[in-house]
Amino acid sequence: MRAVQVVDYHRNPEMTDVAAPTVTDPHDVIVRIGGAGVCRTDIHVLEGQWADKSGVKLPYTIGHENAGWVAAVGSAVTNVAEGDKVIVHPIVTCGLCRACRSGDDVHCTRSLFPGIDTAGGYAEYLRTSARSVVKLDDALEPAEVAALADAGLTAYHAVAKAAARLKPGDRCVMIGAGGLGHIGIQVFKALSAAELVVLDRNPAAVELARALGADRGIVADGTHPEQVLELTGGHGAEAVLDFVGEDGSTREGLGMLRRAGDYHVIGYGENLDIATIDVISSEINIIGNLIGSYNDLCELMNLTARGLVSLHTERYRLDDFQTALDDLDAGRVRGRAILVP
Amino acid sequence: MRAVQVVDYHRNPEMTDVAAPTVTDPHDVIVRIGGAGVCRTDIHVLEGQWADKSGVKLPYTIGHENAGWVAAVGSAVTNVAEGDKVIVHPIVTCGLCRACRSGDDVHCTRSLFPGIDTAGGYAEYLRTSARSVVKLDDALEPAEVAALADAGLTAYHAVAKAAARLKPGDRCVMIGAGGLGHIGIQVFKALSAAELVVLDRNPAAVELARALGADRGIVADGTHPEQVLELTGGHGAEAVLDFVGEDGSTREGLGMLRRAGDYHVIGYGENLDIATIDVISSEINIIGNLIGSYNDLCELMNLTARGLVSLHTERYRLDDFQTALDDLDAGRVRGRAILVP
Amino acid sequence: MRAVQVVDYHRNPEMTDVAAPTVTDPHDVIVRIGGAGVCRTDIHVLEGQWADKSGVKLPYTIGHENAGWVAAVGSAVTNVAEGDKVIVHPIVTCGLCRACRSGDDVHCTRSLFPGIDTAGGYAEYLRTSARSVVKLDDALEPAEVAALADAGLTAYHAVAKAAARLKPGDRCVMIGAGGLGHIGIQVFKALSAAELVVLDRNPAAVELARALGADRGIVADGTHPEQVLELTGGHGAEAVLDFVGEDGSTREGLGMLRRAGDYHVIGYGENLDIATIDVISSEINIIGNLIGSYNDLCELMNLTARGLVSLHTERYRLDDFQTALDDLDAGRVRGRAILVP
Amino acid sequence: MRAVQVVDYHRNPEMTDVAAPTVTDPHDVIVRIGGAGVCRTDIHVLEGQWADKSGVKLPYTIGHENAGWVAAVGSAVTNVAEGDKVIVHPIVTCGLCRACRSGDDVHCTRSLFPGIDTAGGYAEYLRTSARSVVKLDDALEPAEVAALADAGLTAYHAVAKAAARLKPGDRCVMIGAGGLGHIGIQVFKALSAAELVVLDRNPAAVELARALGADRGIVADGTHPEQVLELTGGHGAEAVLDFVGEDGSTREGLGMLRRAGDYHVIGYGENLDIATIDVISSEINIIGNLIGSYNDLCELMNLTARGLVSLHTERYRLDDFQTALDDLDAGRVRGRAILVP
Repeated sequence: MRAVQVVDYHRNPEMTDVAAPTVTDPHDVIVRIGGAGVCRTDIHVLEGQWADKSGVKLPYTIGHENAGWVAAVGSAVTNVAEGDKVIVHPIVTCGLCRACRSGDDVHCTRSLFPGIDTAGGYAEYLRTSARSVVKLDDALEPAEVAALADAGLTAYHAVAKAAARLKPGDRCVMIGAGGLGHIGIQVFKALSAAELVVLDRNPAAVELARALGADRGIVADGTHPEQVLELTGGHGAEAVLDFVGEDGSTREGLGMLRRAGDYHVIGYGENLDIATIDVISSEINIIGNLIGSYNDLCELMNLTARGLVSLHTERYRLDDFQTALDDLDAGRVRGRAILVP
Repeated sequence: MRAVQVVDYHRNPEMTDVAAPTVTDPHDVIVRIGGAGVCRTDIHVLEGQWADKSGVKLPYTIGHENAGWVAAVGSAVTNVAEGDKVIVHPIVTCGLCRACRSGDDVHCTRSLFPGIDTAGGYAEYLRTSARSVVKLDDALEPAEVAALADAGLTAYHAVAKAAARLKPGDRCVMIGAGGLGHIGIQVFKALSAAELVVLDRNPAAVELARALGADRGIVADGTHPEQVLELTGGHGAEAVLDFVGEDGSTREGLGMLRRAGDYHVIGYGENLDIATIDVISSEINIIGNLIGSYNDLCELMNLTARGLVSLHTERYRLDDFQTALDDLDAGRVRGRAILVP
Repeated sequence: MRAVQVVDYHRNPEMTDVAAPTVTDPHDVIVRIGGAGVCRTDIHVLEGQWADKSGVKLPYTIGHENAGWVAAVGSAVTNVAEGDKVIVHPIVTCGLCRACRSGDDVHCTRSLFPGIDTAGGYAEYLRTSARSVVKLDDALEPAEVAALADAGLTAYHAVAKAAARLKPGDRCVMIGAGGLGHIGIQVFKALSAAELVVLDRNPAAVELARALGADRGIVADGTHPEQVLELTGGHGAEAVLDFVGEDGSTREGLGMLRRAGDYHVIGYGENLDIATIDVISSEINIIGNLIGSYNDLCELMNLTARGLVSLHTERYRLDDFQTALDDLDAGRVRGRAILVP
Repeated sequence: MRAVQVVDYHRNPEMTDVAAPTVTDPHDVIVRIGGAGVCRTDIHVLEGQWADKSGVKLPYTIGHENAGWVAAVGSAVTNVAEGDKVIVHPIVTCGLCRACRSGDDVHCTRSLFPGIDTAGGYAEYLRTSARSVVKLDDALEPAEVAALADAGLTAYHAVAKAAARLKPGDRCVMIGAGGLGHIGIQVFKALSAAELVVLDRNPAAVELARALGADRGIVADGTHPEQVLELTGGHGAEAVLDFVGEDGSTREGLGMLRRAGDYHVIGYGENLDIATIDVISSEINIIGNLIGSYNDLCELMNLTARGLVSLHTERYRLDDFQTALDDLDAGRVRGRAILVP
């Protein structure tokens, strides 16, 4: 089959002919790719940023945001059958460790991450596991939802954690209304009746945030921390969701937090540097967020099937992978770039 | 009455004759002091470290760890009566704000902190509020429990928060088995069946930790992070309670944490400096801890009355306040110094 | 002032001239009534059903759903001032017991219930406490929200408890779309992204339920339990909110519950009779619901001010109290009857 | 191999020679039985009480409390290896349904229950799944812990649920200090600092309860409800764990409950019959409890390995199964009867 492979770091990936994956383990599921999201992480992979962490051996196929149709299943697979439309949770998990058995499979102690440390979905077929496929509602198409498998799942996970502690009358500040943020806004409005204040440097993103349901949108022009304090009676917000994590957003975000508030780290890049006396005197929490669990993905697909979350996508043929990567790198993609067969 | 007052910063406090406090508000409670804890914070107050934060006007009476007998009550006080033995929660709270009405009175939006921003308990009498007094069990004496009002309460609060998320089979690392830590160990053993690993640089403190019930005690000699990783199968601990917060304990503590684990900040001093990618990739939580709520103090007094928590104290006459402060400063106090009438 | 008093049971109440309440306790708040809800409980009071439970001495003024303007405050009142628009939480609580200090003031161990066991709000003025008044948003008027003080608060409380355990993809069945139910639907849509299935015998109520946002409305014609099982793949719903509690609704409601599901009792009347083996083999929870806390009322007022919850009311002059009671008893009130000055 | 089979209901089971189970599914684990608990449920099975519910076809091998050594594993098994000592969770679960993926595998939608609906452990070998085996600590022996697989697990599960909501100062009443209860007491003391009050009709059981750590033991002689109310200042207990569920224990248990308290149903037999008005006016919760999850069993094994939970057992050779059943039926077993090879 055709597959786009990383052949070396700091070099364009190449379309290659490789053997299609086959069922080798009883829980294997082979998915015919209907859509593979093109993600900034793919660019980072090509730059070698993940080389050490993943330990992957080159060449290999990238692509970690996948959806498609089940093409074959192993002997122990009971939850999907050939032909089913599915979205693929990015991690292949063991199902036996305590994390897997606690609804926290993202912290599985023996997991694989296709597209990062083993063959991914910029290809015609992908091997994953019965534990990683979520059947799609009839109304949804693989190409349309593929990007929710990672970007959307991360936003869902963080917003759901924040929403679980917020009440009507509370305020949540979201920093960054880009790719993840604009899904996060939709999820927030579905899950919480707290007020959502969205900050972004880009006025167009703020406009979109308002259109997607943000109770307030504020252009981050330097006066925004002050505006947030004013909005919250000088107390700060009960929660901050930081989808940026660089260029000073951590300091700003922590500064907008109310006593006993929750600061959620989602975006990353800079160091978080805070005096311990400031952590204890206001008794705040700093909460890490990774991608969501399999159950989170099921919940997100439920919202999506009911029209409560949607995603703008631009489609590229698999053969045009380089154009998609270039467009993404150059900021020419509106919403999310998806490779389709 | 006699009261020990801060007359100027960087100068010894002075015994002064001041008017005894009287009931002026319907919720006032006047307490005849039976024990006033001598705390490192008192030394910091005298050094002026709290001058800006508290905004207190000199001279004023210090002392924020108090217990005694009710001497007079305001017209609206229904929970205690003259003669009752009480321990005094360090904060006087409003009872009307959302925090007060959510069991989270420490974050009251209109509170006073006797001994810090208004007259405290190095004196014969203290004015506090009906909302701040906890009746003592017959078996307890004010001088014996006074130090639990602040140091003990802080330890209780943090340990109870940690314990609520720990299960048998989980491990909790406690950094620091000093004043707060040795109460924390007793509270932990009462509240949790997780395994407790206590670290301290001082072998004697480690010995005491074991005697108080720590499942493991490790002398922090540089090999301790490695020892913790070994103990935890290389995964790290589900929770870390850091009672130190300086000299590198934050970096060490974060390094001993398992994925999805909770790092509790209790001690303070240094900056917490961590890459956001490390927060999100292991999805950890950094949790601030201030003193406990009034309800926390009631719970701690329940444990104390039942003999599950005890505290070594050394008593000084109120007139000998300077000796007590000097002994504390010189490290000559074993357990906790208490001023008694 | 004028006040409508119960003079004897099984007899119409009477308009009487009584002394207006005055401030006698430092926390007292006198409210000039702007709206007093006329509730089925008032009819039950007149029938003597509450005589034993309340132990109230006749004559006394009824009315427990009140809103208005602050007319006078005691010396310790800091949260409201004369002239403020307020809604009145139905219970006057002590603020000092553990329940009051845990956000659970409904279970205060020393509370009063104006309109039930002391003078209520079918009058020109009402005495309540600083702890029981919630300031209204500028956009809201007392007469418009009075009925939310009890009926709305009960619906909010139960729905919020249920919503806290529901996720997207879960189903919640609501039995009864009458007075409480139709507020419950609006609250549910604000707080939860689970699917809401509303059952009522009255097709018009089902129609209204759909208009208010219910994902499904089913006329309870005898086939409804089967329809619910079908909707839920034969498993039953994760939660059932029973606003009826009589005429067999408890048996039906429990029968629609999924394993490990939550059955919320809100309406009452009949006995709940279930084999213990059925409770344990499906491991279900049966959850009682009383009115909400003060904090719940603040949250409900937030939703109301933002237009997320609204209530149809029919207004009657205070002098026309008997017409209002008769209309309610005869089923002639659409929405909620409110007495206005 | 030898296996004790139900050949007909209302007739003694018979020792039979049957084919030993073999690995047929990749997740299969074959366990050489080291101990099989003899449980009252086995007697109920023989009486045909489970015939309809289980739909099992006769003859089949009974025995649902099993521990032993791994004899063979399927190709996908990674968590245990031949020779490992294991205790067997009573349910074989799918690992793919939402319940299995939420830490709630007891509610798996496609489970088997060896000993009830398929071949159990009164035999030399048992087939179970990788998902159902918990490795034992070196210090533990299969015959010693087998009875914890079901009876102990149920007690653990209920106590852990109750303990999660109890604080120091709260009271928990346990009704019944028999087989499950005496494990429950030990678990309670490990997990909670609330006070435990144990009731039993049998003075010897009350004595044992005290020896195992109950804070109070009360002989249930008719005055016990009153004694509980007295102990709790007339308010009732924050939680009741009812290990009996018959002979009026539900009514008594509900009567001892504080407002907003939790009544846990564990034992079963009679109907729970309560007026809905009593459920709502005191806002109590009635909470079903089934056996615990796989994670619960791991936690219980942790407590057992650390000596915090122990169980008195009387051993019988597998060939003497009838004596064991007869002794159990006649009340001649102290602790728990275990069949050993």
